[in-house]
Amino acid sequence: MMRCLPKSVCDTLLFSCRAPDHMHDYTPPNTCSTPSECLPLSQWNETMECGSELAVDTMKKELKSRAILADCSTRMRSIVSFYFCYLLCLCLGIACVVFVSIWNSQWRGGFAWDGSALQFNWHPVLMVTGLVVLYGNGAVLYRIPLTWGQNKLPWKLLHAGVMLLALLCSILGLCAVFDFHHTNSTPNLYSLHSWIGICTTALFTTQWVMGLAGFLLPCSPMSFRKLLKPAHVWMGGCILILSIVSCISGINEKLFFALKGTTNGTVPYGNLPPEALVANSLGVLIVAFGLVVLKILSNQKWQRPEPRSEDLGYSPLLQDDS
Amino acid sequence: MMRCLPKSVCDTLLFSCRAPDHMHDYTPPNTCSTPSECLPLSQWNETMECGSELAVDTMKKELKSRAILADCSTRMRSIVSFYFCYLLCLCLGIACVVFVSIWNSQWRGGFAWDGSALQFNWHPVLMVTGLVVLYGNGAVLYRIPLTWGQNKLPWKLLHAGVMLLALLCSILGLCAVFDFHHTNSTPNLYSLHSWIGICTTALFTTQWVMGLAGFLLPCSPMSFRKLLKPAHVWMGGCILILSIVSCISGINEKLFFALKGTTNGTVPYGNLPPEALVANSLGVLIVAFGLVVLKILSNQKWQRPEPRSEDLGYSPLLQDDS
Repeated sequence: MMRCLPKSVCDTLLFSCRAPDHMHDYTPPNTCSTPSECLPLSQWNETMECGSELAVDTMKKELKSRAILADCSTRMRSIVSFYFCYLLCLCLGIACVVFVSIWNSQWRGGFAWDGSALQFNWHPVLMVTGLVVLYGNGAVLYRIPLTWGQNKLPWKLLHAGVMLLALLCSILGLCAVFDFHHTNSTPNLYSLHSWIGICTTALFTTQWVMGLAGFLLPCSPMSFRKLLKPAHVWMGGCILILSIVSCISGINEKLFFALKGTTNGTVPYGNLPPEALVANSLGVLIVAFGLVVLKILSNQKWQRPEPRSEDLGYSPLLQDDS
Repeated sequence: MMRCLPKSVCDTLLFSCRAPDHMHDYTPPNTCSTPSECLPLSQWNETMECGSELAVDTMKKELKSRAILADCSTRMRSIVSFYFCYLLCLCLGIACVVFVSIWNSQWRGGFAWDGSALQFNWHPVLMVTGLVVLYGNGAVLYRIPLTWGQNKLPWKLLHAGVMLLALLCSILGLCAVFDFHHTNSTPNLYSLHSWIGICTTALFTTQWVMGLAGFLLPCSPMSFRKLLKPAHVWMGGCILILSIVSCISGINEKLFFALKGTTNGTVPYGNLPPEALVANSLGVLIVAFGLVVLKILSNQKWQRPEPRSEDLGYSPLLQDDS
């Protein structure tokens, strides 16, 4: 007795279980993906006639159980790699806040709100904490697999809340520097750093208001949500890139201002004193954090599964998945 | 005579022509996407009996011709919007090169290779031209729909060639600044700008060498190509982001060095003289160019269609689509 199925039967089974060609990255539930899975048959019964209905049924069951196992394994790998990236994102975010706080408290003299240089020190701390760390963590909230099986509304409110906190930190950070400039008669918004920074905060404010109007207000029409969503996601990534650009140019500028050597009695930046090492490392951490967040946002396997479009039509406006 | 098909017939036709739920963004050729398209029948013959074979055939033909038209229209819109973005990318790229050249020739005294400040001026021009403009244009080459129907090899060679030119420009740009620092006994690689910049060029060099080894050398195994491709695409985007970060921090730093006011007899940066306006605008153009390139790279509809995996197995190594 042969230990194989006729090629035509095998091809038919494979046709039904193989993902379409244009979806090579997608593994739908209960399907197998490689032709080789069709060949070894552990449950093959020697008494079965080659090509009989019983043989095809056994083959189907075998394929199905293997496909379920393979699918589980793929999903588990995807979830584990997500949580690895997410843990990295959390650690880098905490490191950014720690480094920017240490830099400004240890080497820049600490904090105050009196128009002095100590008030300026709030600017890097609040911008890095708000515009980078809180913003990045708020952006990846929907990607956490733990949240997928749950009602989206609480996570939507948390996303909006974290983003509002990030926005408030950024605005307060801008107030700190504007007030410092005002007290010291320094002109505002002339450097490239300030141009990019103010554009970033303005875009972030617009993004938050549009997000509130589009995704949280019950009166927002579904057509507007559908139109807004891709723009919201795309603009979210752009704002993060602009935040990183603003922070790096700002840290670089501050270090040239602060470590002038003999001019202000400091070790010059060119000699890489400990302060320069800490602040440069902060810059590297910010870039690494931003890239990890962008990696999480861009990986399609980690996107929250969307409900079927026909289901969307019947869900209440405040509980939909837009 | 009723002017409708029985619901069961309509549902059967819709089932075959509707895209799967998990592919809501994908419109396959010769398919329709909305249930409403099943209802109005311009070719409906009053003499047809409801549910007859003739009626179903007419219905199928009508649906097919409409679906082809709808598909053509969707593709045309996608191609037109791509070329709009691509034109914007080209214009912004040219504007970046023009602005950086004008800035350094008009306000920074022009170019030389003699260890003076005129040699430094090659640094921004070569880095912006190589690491941003040529790099960005090389990255989006595969997205041009015009190239999709053609053999990929010439485009692969063009991609590698443009990237090599970009890499050579970047290395020459680094040589300009290292040589200038050496002549003037200025320390190297201490600023955050230089840390990010040198990492970007190192990553770019690695990326180019890995690309050559993985996608152009005939001895490269298919399994290595498949593993390398997503990493190559992802790293490509990261390098562009790092390039933008490096350029913006560099321009910002240069303007603070160059426009010191009374210290070196220039109009201070804070007064926004024409040079500052031009260089700041250059920074904005670089950011805009980078975001347009990243938009083109991230839009899945604009990705070169991949060949079926089984076709890949039979294609010569130097002509495959990896």
